[in-house]
Amino acid sequence: MMILEGPSGNNIGAGVAKILGARYAAVEHKLFPDGESYIRMPKIPEGEKNVAIVQSTYSPHEKHLIELLFMIDALKSLGTRHITAIVPYLAYVRQNKMFSAREAVSINTVLRLLSESGAEALITVEPHRYDVLSLFEGKCAIIDPTESFAEALSKTAPNPFVIATDSGDMVRAKKLAELLDCDFDAIEKERDYETGKVRAIHSIKTDLKRKDVIIFDDVISTGGTIELAARIAVENNARKVIAAATHLVMAGNAYERIVRAGVSELYGSNTIPFQNSRAVDVSPRVAEYLKAMKK
Amino acid sequence: MMILEGPSGNNIGAGVAKILGARYAAVEHKLFPDGESYIRMPKIPEGEKNVAIVQSTYSPHEKHLIELLFMIDALKSLGTRHITAIVPYLAYVRQNKMFSAREAVSINTVLRLLSESGAEALITVEPHRYDVLSLFEGKCAIIDPTESFAEALSKTAPNPFVIATDSGDMVRAKKLAELLDCDFDAIEKERDYETGKVRAIHSIKTDLKRKDVIIFDDVISTGGTIELAARIAVENNARKVIAAATHLVMAGNAYERIVRAGVSELYGSNTIPFQNSRAVDVSPRVAEYLKAMKK
Repeated sequence: MMILEGPSGNNIGAGVAKILGARYAAVEHKLFPDGESYIRMPKIPEGEKNVAIVQSTYSPHEKHLIELLFMIDALKSLGTRHITAIVPYLAYVRQNKMFSAREAVSINTVLRLLSESGAEALITVEPHRYDVLSLFEGKCAIIDPTESFAEALSKTAPNPFVIATDSGDMVRAKKLAELLDCDFDAIEKERDYETGKVRAIHSIKTDLKRKDVIIFDDVISTGGTIELAARIAVENNARKVIAAATHLVMAGNAYERIVRAGVSELYGSNTIPFQNSRAVDVSPRVAEYLKAMKK
Repeated sequence: MMILEGPSGNNIGAGVAKILGARYAAVEHKLFPDGESYIRMPKIPEGEKNVAIVQSTYSPHEKHLIELLFMIDALKSLGTRHITAIVPYLAYVRQNKMFSAREAVSINTVLRLLSESGAEALITVEPHRYDVLSLFEGKCAIIDPTESFAEALSKTAPNPFVIATDSGDMVRAKKLAELLDCDFDAIEKERDYETGKVRAIHSIKTDLKRKDVIIFDDVISTGGTIELAARIAVENNARKVIAAATHLVMAGNAYERIVRAGVSELYGSNTIPFQNSRAVDVSPRVAEYLKAMKK
Protein backbone atom coordinates (compact mmCIF):
# COMPACT_ATOMS: atom_id res chain seq x y z
CA MET A 1 0.00 0.00 0.00
CA MET A 2 1.10 3.51 -0.81
CA ILE A 3 0.08 6.63 1.15
CA LEU A 4 -0.79 9.76 -0.83
CA GLU A 5 -0.90 13.07 1.01
CA GLY A 6 -3.49 15.45 -0.39
CA PRO A 7 -3.33 19.26 -0.19
CA SER A 8 -5.19 19.19 3.14
CA GLY A 9 -3.56 16.02 4.50
CA ASN A 10 -1.82 18.13 7.14
CA ASN A 11 1.09 15.64 7.27
CA ILE A 12 -1.08 12.90 8.72
CA GLY A 13 -0.18 10.85 5.64
CA ALA A 14 3.52 11.26 6.37
CA GLY A 15 2.94 10.14 9.94
CA VAL A 16 0.95 7.10 8.90
CA ALA A 17 3.50 6.08 6.26
CA LYS A 18 6.33 6.33 8.75
CA ILE A 19 4.54 4.15 11.30
CA LEU A 20 3.54 1.54 8.71
CA GLY A 21 6.83 1.67 6.81
CA ALA A 22 4.73 2.31 3.69
CA ARG A 23 5.77 4.19 0.58
CA TYR A 24 4.69 7.84 0.65
CA ALA A 25 4.03 10.58 -1.90
CA ALA A 26 2.65 14.07 -1.63
CA VAL A 27 0.37 15.24 -4.39
CA GLU A 28 1.51 18.16 -6.54
CA HIS A 29 -0.94 20.96 -5.96
CA LYS A 30 -1.37 24.58 -6.93
CA LEU A 31 -4.13 27.04 -7.61
CA PHE A 32 -4.74 28.48 -11.05
CA PRO A 33 -5.02 32.29 -11.18
CA ASP A 34 -8.83 32.01 -11.03
CA GLY A 35 -8.68 29.81 -7.92
CA GLU A 36 -9.35 26.42 -9.50
CA SER A 37 -7.25 23.60 -8.08
CA TYR A 38 -4.52 21.86 -10.01
CA ILE A 39 -3.74 18.30 -9.01
CA ARG A 40 -0.94 16.10 -10.28
CA MET A 41 0.62 13.00 -8.85
CA PRO A 42 4.13 12.66 -10.16
CA LYS A 43 5.25 10.00 -7.73
CA ILE A 44 2.50 7.40 -8.03
CA PRO A 45 3.70 4.54 -10.24
CA GLU A 46 1.42 3.50 -13.09
CA GLY A 47 -0.70 0.57 -11.96
CA GLU A 48 0.00 1.06 -8.25
CA LYS A 49 -2.71 -1.26 -6.91
CA ASN A 50 -3.48 0.01 -3.47
CA VAL A 51 -3.41 3.66 -2.43
CA ALA A 52 -4.70 5.42 0.68
CA ILE A 53 -5.31 9.15 0.19
CA VAL A 54 -5.25 11.52 3.18
CA GLN A 55 -7.38 14.59 2.58
CA SER A 56 -9.21 16.40 5.36
CA THR A 57 -12.30 18.42 4.41
CA TYR A 58 -12.05 21.47 6.63
CA SER A 59 -12.70 24.94 5.20
CA PRO A 60 -12.87 25.56 2.28
CA HIS A 61 -14.83 22.33 2.71
CA GLU A 62 -16.11 21.90 -0.82
CA LYS A 63 -12.71 22.60 -2.39
CA HIS A 64 -11.04 19.97 -0.26
CA LEU A 65 -13.82 17.50 -1.02
CA ILE A 66 -13.64 18.07 -4.77
CA GLU A 67 -9.84 17.79 -4.66
CA LEU A 68 -10.27 14.40 -3.02
CA LEU A 69 -12.56 13.33 -5.87
CA PHE A 70 -10.03 14.65 -8.43
CA MET A 71 -7.32 12.57 -6.77
CA ILE A 72 -9.48 9.45 -6.72
CA ASP A 73 -10.29 9.80 -10.43
CA ALA A 74 -6.65 10.49 -11.29
CA LEU A 75 -5.58 7.37 -9.40
CA LYS A 76 -8.19 5.29 -11.21
CA SER A 77 -6.90 6.53 -14.55
CA LEU A 78 -3.41 5.46 -13.46
CA GLY A 79 -4.80 1.97 -12.90
CA THR A 80 -5.13 1.95 -9.11
CA ARG A 81 -7.73 -0.62 -8.09
CA HIS A 82 -8.11 -0.21 -4.36
CA ILE A 83 -8.49 3.27 -2.94
CA THR A 84 -8.98 4.16 0.70
CA ALA A 85 -10.10 7.69 1.53
CA ILE A 86 -8.73 8.92 4.84
CA VAL A 87 -10.77 12.01 5.65
CA PRO A 88 -9.67 13.11 9.14
CA TYR A 89 -12.29 15.85 9.39
CA LEU A 90 -15.48 15.05 7.51
CA ALA A 91 -17.35 18.16 6.36
CA TYR A 92 -21.13 18.55 6.56
CA VAL A 93 -21.56 15.80 9.12
CA ARG A 94 -23.69 18.12 11.26
CA GLN A 95 -26.19 18.57 8.41
CA ASN A 96 -27.34 15.00 8.87
CA LYS A 97 -31.13 15.33 9.00
CA MET A 98 -33.88 17.74 8.12
CA PHE A 99 -34.03 20.12 11.06
CA SER A 100 -36.87 21.77 9.17
CA ALA A 101 -38.75 20.47 6.13
CA ARG A 102 -37.26 20.67 2.63
CA GLU A 103 -33.68 21.11 3.75
CA ALA A 104 -30.80 19.54 1.89
CA VAL A 105 -29.34 16.76 4.02
CA SER A 106 -25.88 17.63 2.86
CA ILE A 107 -23.94 14.79 4.48
CA ASN A 108 -25.99 12.34 2.40
CA THR A 109 -24.70 13.98 -0.76
CA VAL A 110 -21.13 14.02 0.52
CA LEU A 111 -21.26 10.30 1.34
CA ARG A 112 -22.96 9.52 -1.99
CA LEU A 113 -20.12 11.30 -3.80
CA LEU A 114 -17.50 9.37 -1.84
CA SER A 115 -19.30 6.07 -2.45
CA GLU A 116 -19.77 6.66 -6.16
CA SER A 117 -16.17 7.81 -6.58
CA GLY A 118 -15.10 4.21 -6.14
CA ALA A 119 -13.24 4.62 -2.86
CA GLU A 120 -13.54 1.21 -1.23
CA ALA A 121 -12.98 2.33 2.32
CA LEU A 122 -13.40 5.47 4.36
CA ILE A 123 -11.50 6.29 7.53
CA THR A 124 -12.52 9.35 9.50
CA VAL A 125 -11.89 10.73 12.97
CA GLU A 126 -14.82 11.06 15.35
CA PRO A 127 -17.58 12.53 13.22
CA HIS A 128 -20.23 14.51 15.10
CA ARG A 129 -22.68 11.74 14.30
CA TYR A 130 -21.60 8.13 13.85
CA ASP A 131 -24.81 6.71 12.41
CA VAL A 132 -24.78 8.72 9.18
CA LEU A 133 -21.66 6.94 8.00
CA SER A 134 -23.72 3.87 7.25
CA LEU A 135 -24.59 5.69 4.01
CA PHE A 136 -21.05 5.12 2.78
CA GLU A 137 -21.21 1.96 0.73
CA GLY A 138 -17.73 0.60 1.39
CA LYS A 139 -15.88 -0.34 4.53
CA CYS A 140 -15.86 2.37 7.13
CA ALA A 141 -13.69 3.00 10.18
CA ILE A 142 -14.20 5.67 12.79
CA ILE A 143 -11.27 6.71 14.91
CA ASP A 144 -11.74 7.70 18.53
CA PRO A 145 -8.81 9.90 19.55
CA THR A 146 -9.66 10.01 23.26
CA GLU A 147 -6.62 7.94 24.29
CA SER A 148 -4.28 10.25 22.43
CA PHE A 149 -5.90 13.21 24.14
CA ALA A 150 -5.56 11.55 27.54
CA GLU A 151 -1.88 11.02 26.96
CA ALA A 152 -1.30 14.67 26.01
CA LEU A 153 -3.54 16.09 28.73
CA SER A 154 -2.06 13.99 31.55
CA LYS A 155 1.10 16.11 31.24
CA THR A 156 -0.56 19.49 31.57
CA ALA A 157 -3.33 18.63 34.04
CA PRO A 158 -1.88 17.01 37.17
CA ASN A 159 -5.15 17.35 39.08
CA PRO A 160 -7.74 16.94 36.31
CA PHE A 161 -11.50 17.25 36.28
CA VAL A 162 -13.41 16.65 33.05
CA ILE A 163 -16.47 18.61 31.97
CA ALA A 164 -18.71 17.40 29.17
CA THR A 165 -20.55 20.17 27.35
CA ASP A 166 -23.72 18.19 26.95
CA SER A 167 -25.36 15.84 29.40
CA GLY A 168 -26.62 13.81 26.45
CA ASP A 169 -23.09 13.05 25.35
CA MET A 170 -21.26 11.88 28.46
CA VAL A 171 -19.59 8.82 26.97
CA ARG A 172 -16.52 10.64 25.70
CA ALA A 173 -16.04 12.63 28.89
CA LYS A 174 -16.47 9.49 30.98
CA LYS A 175 -13.86 7.70 28.90
CA LEU A 176 -11.37 10.56 29.21
CA ALA A 177 -11.98 10.80 32.96
CA GLU A 178 -11.36 7.09 33.34
CA LEU A 179 -8.13 7.30 31.39
CA LEU A 180 -7.02 10.26 33.53
CA ASP A 181 -8.37 8.59 36.68
CA CYS A 182 -10.45 11.59 37.73
CA ASP A 183 -14.01 12.81 38.23
CA PHE A 184 -16.25 14.31 35.59
CA ASP A 185 -19.53 16.11 35.25
CA ALA A 186 -21.62 17.67 32.52
CA ILE A 187 -23.36 20.93 32.04
CA GLU A 188 -26.82 20.85 30.62
CA LYS A 189 -27.47 23.46 28.00
CA GLU A 190 -30.22 24.71 25.80
CA ARG A 191 -29.60 25.99 22.30
CA ASP A 192 -31.80 28.59 20.69
CA TYR A 193 -31.96 27.29 17.12
CA GLU A 194 -32.94 30.71 15.78
CA THR A 195 -30.01 32.67 17.21
CA GLY A 196 -27.58 29.78 17.78
CA LYS A 197 -26.99 31.01 21.35
CA VAL A 198 -26.58 28.53 24.20
CA ARG A 199 -27.40 28.94 27.87
CA ALA A 200 -26.85 26.64 30.83
CA ILE A 201 -29.91 25.10 32.43
CA HIS A 202 -27.91 22.87 34.77
CA SER A 203 -24.56 23.80 36.19
CA ILE A 204 -21.74 22.04 38.03
CA LYS A 205 -22.13 21.55 41.77
CA THR A 206 -18.57 20.47 42.63
CA ASP A 207 -16.06 22.97 43.96
CA LEU A 208 -13.22 22.96 41.45
CA LYS A 209 -10.58 24.60 43.64
CA ARG A 210 -7.10 23.28 42.76
CA LYS A 211 -8.60 21.43 39.80
CA ASP A 212 -7.23 21.58 36.24
CA VAL A 213 -10.53 21.57 34.43
CA ILE A 214 -10.64 19.98 30.99
CA ILE A 215 -13.67 20.91 28.90
CA PHE A 216 -13.90 18.07 26.43
CA ASP A 217 -15.90 18.24 23.21
CA ASP A 218 -15.81 16.71 19.76
CA VAL A 219 -15.79 19.99 17.88
CA ILE A 220 -15.35 23.68 18.67
CA SER A 221 -17.22 25.72 16.09
CA THR A 222 -18.32 29.18 17.26
CA GLY A 223 -16.96 28.50 20.74
CA GLY A 224 -20.30 29.30 22.41
CA THR A 225 -20.52 26.02 24.30
CA ILE A 226 -16.92 26.13 25.49
CA GLU A 227 -17.38 29.75 26.57
CA LEU A 228 -20.35 28.74 28.69
CA ALA A 229 -18.53 25.80 30.29
CA ALA A 230 -15.39 27.88 30.89
CA ARG A 231 -17.35 30.57 32.74
CA ILE A 232 -18.89 27.90 34.95
CA ALA A 233 -15.43 26.41 35.66
CA VAL A 234 -14.07 29.83 36.60
CA GLU A 235 -17.07 30.53 38.83
CA ASN A 236 -16.34 27.22 40.57
CA ASN A 237 -12.77 28.34 41.33
CA ALA A 238 -10.92 26.15 38.80
CA ARG A 239 -7.13 26.52 38.95
CA LYS A 240 -6.72 26.14 35.21
CA VAL A 241 -9.25 25.83 32.38
CA ILE A 242 -8.24 23.73 29.38
CA ALA A 243 -10.40 23.30 26.29
CA ALA A 244 -9.85 20.10 24.33
CA ALA A 245 -11.69 19.10 21.17
CA THR A 246 -10.99 16.71 18.35
CA HIS A 247 -11.83 19.17 15.59
CA LEU A 248 -10.94 22.84 15.97
CA VAL A 249 -13.27 24.44 13.44
CA MET A 250 -12.86 27.76 15.30
CA ALA A 251 -15.28 29.85 13.23
CA GLY A 252 -15.09 33.63 13.43
CA ASN A 253 -13.78 34.90 16.79
CA ALA A 254 -14.17 31.56 18.57
CA TYR A 255 -10.61 31.64 19.88
CA GLU A 256 -10.84 35.15 21.37
CA ARG A 257 -14.18 34.19 22.83
CA ILE A 258 -12.99 31.14 24.76
CA VAL A 259 -9.79 32.84 25.91
CA ARG A 260 -11.86 35.75 27.25
CA ALA A 261 -14.02 33.21 29.11
CA GLY A 262 -10.98 31.87 30.94
CA VAL A 263 -9.51 29.12 28.74
CA SER A 264 -5.73 29.23 29.04
CA GLU A 265 -4.81 26.15 27.03
CA LEU A 266 -6.35 24.76 23.87
CA TYR A 267 -5.84 21.21 22.65
CA GLY A 268 -7.06 19.88 19.31
CA SER A 269 -6.10 17.13 16.94
CA ASN A 270 -4.34 17.66 13.62
CA THR A 271 -7.50 16.83 11.65
CA ILE A 272 -7.80 20.63 11.22
CA PRO A 273 -4.77 22.87 11.48
CA PHE A 274 -5.16 25.66 14.05
CA GLN A 275 -2.11 27.64 15.09
CA ASN A 276 -3.09 28.64 18.63
CA SER A 277 -3.48 25.08 19.83
CA ARG A 278 -1.37 22.14 20.87
CA ALA A 279 -1.95 19.43 18.32
CA VAL A 280 -2.69 15.84 19.23
CA ASP A 281 -1.49 13.66 16.36
CA VAL A 282 -4.08 11.19 15.03
CA SER A 283 -1.58 9.43 12.73
CA PRO A 284 -0.86 6.51 15.09
CA ARG A 285 -4.57 5.66 15.37
CA VAL A 286 -5.10 6.04 11.62
CA ALA A 287 -2.16 3.72 10.99
CA GLU A 288 -3.61 1.18 13.41
CA TYR A 289 -7.00 1.16 11.67
CA LEU A 290 -5.45 1.02 8.22
CA LYS A 291 -3.49 -2.04 9.29
CA ALA A 292 -6.60 -3.66 10.79
CA MET A 293 -8.72 -2.93 7.69
CA LYS A 294 -6.25 -4.63 5.41
CA LYS A 295 -6.75 -7.91 7.23
CA MET B 1 -41.66 22.89 -15.53
CA MET B 2 -40.49 24.93 -12.58
CA ILE B 3 -37.35 27.06 -12.50
CA LEU B 4 -35.23 27.00 -9.33
CA GLU B 5 -32.66 29.73 -8.84
CA GLY B 6 -29.58 28.55 -6.97
CA PRO B 7 -27.31 30.78 -4.84
CA SER B 8 -25.17 31.54 -7.90
CA GLY B 9 -28.02 31.69 -10.42
CA ASN B 10 -27.39 35.41 -10.81
CA ASN B 11 -31.07 36.00 -11.70
CA ILE B 12 -30.80 34.06 -14.94
CA GLY B 13 -33.47 31.75 -13.56
CA ALA B 14 -35.81 34.67 -13.01
CA GLY B 15 -35.24 35.84 -16.59
CA VAL B 16 -35.84 32.39 -18.00
CA ALA B 17 -39.02 31.88 -15.97
CA LYS B 18 -40.39 35.22 -17.07
CA ILE B 19 -39.78 34.45 -20.75
CA LEU B 20 -41.27 30.97 -20.51
CA GLY B 21 -44.09 31.98 -18.19
CA ALA B 22 -42.88 29.18 -15.90
CA ARG B 23 -43.25 28.99 -12.14
CA TYR B 24 -40.17 30.26 -10.31
CA ALA B 25 -38.59 29.79 -6.90
CA ALA B 26 -35.33 30.91 -5.37
CA VAL B 27 -33.56 28.51 -3.08
CA GLU B 28 -33.12 29.46 0.57
CA HIS B 29 -29.42 29.76 1.19
CA LYS B 30 -27.10 30.82 3.97
CA LEU B 31 -23.68 29.99 5.29
CA PHE B 32 -23.15 28.34 8.65
CA PRO B 33 -20.61 30.09 10.93
CA ASP B 34 -17.90 27.69 9.74
CA GLY B 35 -18.62 28.46 6.06
CA GLU B 36 -20.59 25.34 5.15
CA SER B 37 -23.57 25.99 2.88
CA TYR B 38 -27.14 25.62 4.01
CA ILE B 39 -29.71 24.83 1.30
CA ARG B 40 -33.45 24.67 1.67
CA MET B 41 -36.21 24.85 -0.91
CA PRO B 42 -39.37 26.08 0.76
CA LYS B 43 -41.25 26.81 -2.43
CA ILE B 44 -40.87 23.59 -4.39
CA PRO B 45 -44.05 21.53 -4.08
CA GLU B 46 -43.67 17.91 -3.02
CA GLY B 47 -43.63 15.72 -6.12
CA GLU B 48 -42.98 18.59 -8.55
CA LYS B 49 -42.04 16.49 -11.57
CA ASN B 50 -39.87 18.70 -13.68
CA VAL B 51 -37.42 21.27 -12.33
CA ALA B 52 -34.62 23.21 -13.98
CA ILE B 53 -31.97 24.50 -11.55
CA VAL B 54 -29.86 27.51 -12.45
CA GLN B 55 -26.49 27.46 -10.70
CA SER B 56 -23.34 28.90 -12.21
CA THR B 57 -20.01 27.49 -11.03
CA TYR B 58 -17.77 30.54 -10.90
CA SER B 59 -15.49 31.13 -7.89
CA PRO B 60 -15.70 29.63 -5.31
CA HIS B 61 -16.10 26.98 -8.00
CA GLU B 62 -16.26 23.89 -5.84
CA LYS B 63 -18.73 25.44 -3.40
CA HIS B 64 -21.11 26.35 -6.20
CA LEU B 65 -20.74 22.90 -7.73
CA ILE B 66 -21.42 21.11 -4.45
CA GLU B 67 -24.40 23.37 -3.78
CA LEU B 68 -25.79 22.29 -7.16
CA LEU B 69 -25.40 18.65 -6.12
CA PHE B 70 -27.09 19.40 -2.77
CA MET B 71 -30.03 20.95 -4.63
CA ILE B 72 -30.32 18.02 -7.03
CA ASP B 73 -30.36 15.53 -4.15
CA ALA B 74 -32.89 17.63 -2.21
CA LEU B 75 -35.17 17.76 -5.26
CA LYS B 76 -34.91 14.01 -5.69
CA SER B 77 -35.91 13.50 -2.08
CA LEU B 78 -38.94 15.73 -2.73
CA GLY B 79 -39.90 13.36 -5.55
CA THR B 80 -38.77 15.38 -8.57
CA ARG B 81 -38.19 13.03 -11.48
CA HIS B 82 -36.75 15.20 -14.23
CA ILE B 83 -33.97 17.61 -13.34
CA THR B 84 -32.19 19.91 -15.75
CA ALA B 85 -28.98 21.55 -14.59
CA ILE B 86 -28.45 24.98 -16.09
CA VAL B 87 -24.81 25.81 -15.39
CA PRO B 88 -24.14 29.11 -17.17
CA TYR B 89 -20.42 29.08 -16.38
CA LEU B 90 -18.96 25.59 -16.16
CA ALA B 91 -15.92 25.39 -13.90
CA TYR B 92 -12.81 23.37 -14.70
CA VAL B 93 -13.57 23.16 -18.41
CA ARG B 94 -10.05 24.32 -19.21
CA GLN B 95 -8.54 21.35 -17.35
CA ASN B 96 -9.76 19.04 -20.09
CA LYS B 97 -6.70 16.95 -20.90
CA MET B 98 -3.35 16.00 -19.43
CA PHE B 99 -1.08 18.87 -20.35
CA SER B 100 1.61 16.88 -18.59
CA ALA B 101 1.51 13.24 -17.47
CA ARG B 102 -0.33 12.23 -14.27
CA GLU B 103 -2.47 15.33 -14.04
CA ALA B 104 -6.04 15.18 -12.84
CA VAL B 105 -8.36 15.87 -15.78
CA SER B 106 -10.69 17.78 -13.54
CA ILE B 107 -13.52 18.45 -15.98
CA ASN B 108 -13.99 14.68 -16.32
CA THR B 109 -14.69 14.49 -12.60
CA VAL B 110 -17.05 17.47 -12.72
CA LEU B 111 -19.05 15.91 -15.56
CA ARG B 112 -19.05 12.52 -13.85
CA LEU B 113 -20.51 14.14 -10.74
CA LEU B 114 -23.19 15.89 -12.76
CA SER B 115 -24.04 12.69 -14.67
CA GLU B 116 -24.20 10.52 -11.55
CA SER B 117 -26.27 13.12 -9.70
CA GLY B 118 -29.20 12.15 -11.89
CA ALA B 119 -29.56 15.44 -13.76
CA GLU B 120 -31.06 14.43 -17.09
CA ALA B 121 -29.95 17.44 -19.04
CA LEU B 122 -27.19 20.02 -18.87
CA ILE B 123 -27.35 23.47 -20.37
CA THR B 124 -24.23 25.60 -20.35
CA VAL B 125 -23.02 28.73 -22.06
CA GLU B 126 -20.05 28.49 -24.41
CA PRO B 127 -17.59 26.30 -22.53
CA HIS B 128 -13.95 26.80 -23.46
CA ARG B 129 -13.99 23.37 -25.08
CA TYR B 130 -17.14 21.90 -26.59
CA ASP B 131 -15.97 18.32 -27.08
CA VAL B 132 -15.52 17.51 -23.38
CA LEU B 133 -19.24 17.82 -22.78
CA SER B 134 -19.77 14.48 -24.50
CA LEU B 135 -18.76 13.01 -21.13
CA PHE B 136 -22.05 14.18 -19.67
CA GLU B 137 -24.38 11.22 -19.98
CA GLY B 138 -27.67 13.04 -20.47
CA LYS B 139 -28.88 15.55 -23.00
CA CYS B 140 -26.61 18.50 -23.41
CA ALA B 141 -27.12 21.95 -24.90
CA ILE B 142 -24.45 24.55 -25.45
CA ILE B 143 -25.50 28.15 -25.78
CA ASP B 144 -23.67 30.48 -28.12
CA PRO B 145 -24.26 34.06 -26.92
CA THR B 146 -22.67 35.76 -29.95
CA GLU B 147 -25.96 37.14 -31.25
CA SER B 148 -26.75 38.71 -27.91
CA PHE B 149 -23.29 40.26 -27.85
CA ALA B 150 -23.74 41.58 -31.41
CA GLU B 151 -26.97 43.25 -30.38
CA ALA B 152 -25.39 44.96 -27.38
CA LEU B 153 -22.18 45.91 -29.18
CA SER B 154 -23.91 47.37 -32.24
CA LYS B 155 -25.05 50.25 -30.03
CA THR B 156 -21.63 51.19 -28.69
CA ALA B 157 -19.49 50.48 -31.75
CA PRO B 158 -20.82 52.34 -34.81
CA ASN B 159 -17.69 51.59 -36.85
CA PRO B 160 -16.68 48.17 -35.53
CA PHE B 161 -13.67 46.00 -36.21
CA VAL B 162 -13.38 42.61 -34.48
CA ILE B 163 -10.15 41.13 -33.21
CA ALA B 164 -9.90 37.46 -32.26
CA THR B 165 -7.27 36.73 -29.68
CA ASP B 166 -6.20 33.48 -31.25
CA SER B 167 -5.83 32.66 -34.93
CA GLY B 168 -6.83 29.08 -34.14
CA ASP B 169 -10.22 30.25 -32.91
CA MET B 170 -11.56 32.58 -35.59
CA VAL B 171 -15.06 31.14 -35.83
CA ARG B 172 -16.54 33.24 -33.04
CA ALA B 173 -14.91 36.46 -34.25
CA LYS B 174 -16.01 35.77 -37.82
CA LYS B 175 -19.57 35.22 -36.64
CA LEU B 176 -19.60 38.43 -34.61
CA ALA B 177 -18.08 40.38 -37.54
CA GLU B 178 -20.75 39.03 -39.87
CA LEU B 179 -23.51 40.01 -37.47
CA LEU B 180 -22.01 43.50 -37.13
CA ASP B 181 -21.25 43.61 -40.87
CA CYS B 182 -17.59 44.53 -40.42
CA ASP B 183 -14.05 43.25 -40.91
CA PHE B 184 -12.10 41.14 -38.50
CA ASP B 185 -8.61 39.82 -37.93
CA ALA B 186 -6.74 37.77 -35.38
CA ILE B 187 -3.54 38.11 -33.49
CA GLU B 188 -1.34 35.10 -33.24
CA LYS B 189 0.12 34.53 -29.83
CA GLU B 190 2.41 32.20 -28.03
CA ARG B 191 1.92 31.20 -24.43
CA ASP B 192 4.76 30.25 -22.16
CA TYR B 193 3.20 27.42 -20.18
CA GLU B 194 5.72 27.80 -17.37
CA THR B 195 5.09 31.48 -16.65
CA GLY B 196 1.64 31.81 -18.24
CA LYS B 197 2.81 34.91 -20.15
CA VAL B 198 1.66 35.53 -23.71
CA ARG B 199 3.42 37.38 -26.50
CA ALA B 200 2.31 38.23 -30.02
CA ILE B 201 4.04 36.46 -32.86
CA HIS B 202 1.76 37.88 -35.52
CA SER B 203 0.14 41.26 -35.30
CA ILE B 204 -2.64 43.16 -37.11
CA LYS B 205 -1.74 44.80 -40.42
CA THR B 206 -4.84 46.97 -40.89
CA ASP B 207 -4.85 50.63 -39.88
CA LEU B 208 -7.60 50.92 -37.26
CA LYS B 209 -8.04 54.70 -37.40
CA ARG B 210 -11.67 55.65 -36.69
CA LYS B 211 -12.42 52.03 -35.79
CA ASP B 212 -14.22 50.90 -32.65
CA VAL B 213 -12.19 47.79 -32.00
CA ILE B 214 -13.91 44.88 -30.29
CA ILE B 215 -11.57 42.28 -28.82
CA PHE B 216 -13.76 39.21 -28.63
CA ASP B 217 -12.92 36.18 -26.50
CA ASP B 218 -14.76 33.41 -24.72
CA VAL B 219 -13.19 34.06 -21.34
CA ILE B 220 -11.07 36.72 -19.67
CA SER B 221 -9.02 35.11 -16.92
CA THR B 222 -5.80 36.94 -16.04
CA GLY B 223 -6.38 39.47 -18.82
CA GLY B 224 -3.01 38.78 -20.42
CA THR B 225 -4.39 38.03 -23.87
CA ILE B 226 -6.74 41.02 -23.86
CA GLU B 227 -3.91 43.25 -22.69
CA LEU B 228 -1.80 42.13 -25.63
CA ALA B 229 -4.59 42.65 -28.15
CA ALA B 230 -5.51 46.04 -26.66
CA ARG B 231 -1.95 47.30 -26.97
CA ILE B 232 -1.89 46.24 -30.63
CA ALA B 233 -5.22 48.01 -31.24
CA VAL B 234 -3.90 51.19 -29.62
CA GLU B 235 -0.68 51.01 -31.66
CA ASN B 236 -2.85 50.73 -34.78
CA ASN B 237 -4.67 53.97 -33.88
CA ALA B 238 -8.00 52.49 -32.80
CA ARG B 239 -10.57 55.14 -31.82
CA LYS B 240 -12.03 53.00 -29.05
CA VAL B 241 -11.02 49.62 -27.60
CA ILE B 242 -13.79 47.39 -26.28
CA ALA B 243 -13.18 44.04 -24.63
CA ALA B 244 -16.05 41.56 -24.86
CA ALA B 245 -16.03 38.05 -23.45
CA THR B 246 -18.71 35.57 -22.50
CA HIS B 247 -17.22 34.73 -19.12
CA LEU B 248 -15.55 37.43 -17.05
CA VAL B 249 -13.42 35.36 -14.71
CA MET B 250 -11.24 38.44 -14.07
CA ALA B 251 -8.62 36.83 -11.84
CA GLY B 252 -6.38 39.05 -9.71
CA ASN B 253 -5.77 42.46 -11.26
CA ALA B 254 -7.13 41.54 -14.70
CA TYR B 255 -9.43 44.55 -14.82
CA GLU B 256 -6.74 47.12 -13.98
CA ARG B 257 -4.46 45.41 -16.47
CA ILE B 258 -6.77 45.65 -19.46
CA VAL B 259 -7.85 49.21 -18.59
CA ARG B 260 -4.19 50.23 -18.41
CA ALA B 261 -3.66 48.65 -21.84
CA GLY B 262 -6.35 50.89 -23.34
CA VAL B 263 -9.67 49.07 -22.91
CA SER B 264 -12.37 51.65 -22.19
CA GLU B 265 -15.46 49.42 -22.24
CA LEU B 266 -15.91 45.89 -20.96
CA TYR B 267 -18.79 43.63 -21.97
CA GLY B 268 -19.48 40.24 -20.47
CA SER B 269 -22.46 38.00 -20.01
CA ASN B 270 -24.25 37.40 -16.73
CA THR B 271 -22.85 33.87 -16.43
CA ILE B 272 -20.40 35.42 -13.94
CA PRO B 273 -21.24 38.63 -12.08
CA PHE B 274 -18.60 41.35 -12.54
CA GLN B 275 -19.43 44.87 -11.48
CA ASN B 276 -17.23 46.88 -13.86
CA SER B 277 -18.85 45.47 -16.98
CA ARG B 278 -22.00 45.86 -19.02
CA ALA B 279 -23.83 42.58 -18.77
CA VAL B 280 -25.27 40.76 -21.75
CA ASP B 281 -28.19 38.68 -20.52
CA VAL B 282 -28.09 35.03 -21.54
CA SER B 283 -31.60 34.29 -20.22
CA PRO B 284 -33.38 34.59 -23.59
CA ARG B 285 -31.08 32.00 -25.19
CA VAL B 286 -31.32 29.69 -22.19
CA ALA B 287 -35.12 29.91 -22.37
CA GLU B 288 -35.02 29.10 -26.08
CA TYR B 289 -32.91 25.98 -25.54
CA LEU B 290 -34.96 24.85 -22.58
CA LYS B 291 -38.07 25.06 -24.73
CA ALA B 292 -36.38 23.19 -27.59
CA MET B 293 -35.09 20.46 -25.27
CA LYS B 294 -38.52 19.75 -23.90
CA LYS B 295 -39.72 18.76 -27.34
